[in-house]
Amino acid sequence: MANLQLDQDAGSQAGLVHVASYISGYVDGEGCFTVSISPRPTLLVGWEVRPSLSVSQNADRSEVLGVIQRHFACGTIRPDRSDRTLKWEVRRLPLLLDRVIPHFETYPLLSAKRRDFEAFAEICRRMARGDHRTVAGLREIVGLAGGMNPSGKRGYLALAILQSLAEMKA
Amino acid sequence: MANLQLDQDAGSQAGLVHVASYISGYVDGEGCFTVSISPRPTLLVGWEVRPSLSVSQNADRSEVLGVIQRHFACGTIRPDRSDRTLKWEVRRLPLLLDRVIPHFETYPLLSAKRRDFEAFAEICRRMARGDHRTVAGLREIVGLAGGMNPSGKRGYLALAILQSLAEMKA
Repeated sequence: MANLQLDQDAGSQAGLVHVASYISGYVDGEGCFTVSISPRPTLLVGWEVRPSLSVSQNADRSEVLGVIQRHFACGTIRPDRSDRTLKWEVRRLPLLLDRVIPHFETYPLLSAKRRDFEAFAEICRRMARGDHRTVAGLREIVGLAGGMNPSGKRGYLALAILQSLAEMKA
Repeated sequence: MANLQLDQDAGSQAGLVHVASYISGYVDGEGCFTVSISPRPTLLVGWEVRPSLSVSQNADRSEVLGVIQRHFACGTIRPDRSDRTLKWEVRRLPLLLDRVIPHFETYPLLSAKRRDFEAFAEICRRMARGDHRTVAGLREIVGLAGGMNPSGKRGYLALAILQSLAEMKA
């Protein structure tokens, strides 16, 4: 395993830190794998599925967001409108599939957040196959997403989405 | 660098994670290096200095606290009275000096929290020399502690402590 030497402020004192493992630890504490499902009447199934990984941090010590962005070579860092934090976020499915998911399969989360990640990865792979564009496929995605982030707030309740899908099929 | 294989639940899926680096990342997000200074009339200088490292986590995904406790082979895990979290904490100075501080010097924090750690380590080393038992030594410790955790609340203000020390000397 290489010990990456970063050439930026935060990394110049990285010492023996294995940065990929460090990032998994940081994301285990501060990161959020989210799959939001919102109404989108222009889509055939009526719902849009949007997976994302985000990590928030107080602006006064947000160096690690830069370390993460460089490590994954993707994602945007911007102010979070809800508070005084900065947020690094990846939303593009190909980047999630090619860069984010393989990282966390190689350097897994050690907390129960790993189960969120596993559902997240499964949903992203189903989306790559187009499952989210069919009623049957979306129904299964809704089920997977419904089990994620148990302590967080869900946007649209799985039940409401499933009911809407049942009506479409009828 | 060895890739530790943990034999417990959380560790059985650790894969290629370098656990020491992972813990530094986790603590960078979720940990708190604290030096509390409180009145203690029975002490000659009238103030007690108590350094500690703590990491809090929601009880429903507190596995990482167990990983951290095993890694450092010290510290207690108990419910935090203020909320529904569990907290791993090390308070004993010899353990901080022998196990905690060397870890974060070898696998440093990458955020500005590193500055808190450096002040913390300096205070612990001064306490090992007994500096906190003299007015002059305690005055310098108060100065070092005053610069820590800028976004958190301070218990007793450095100013109040310094004023009390000035009165003692007079």
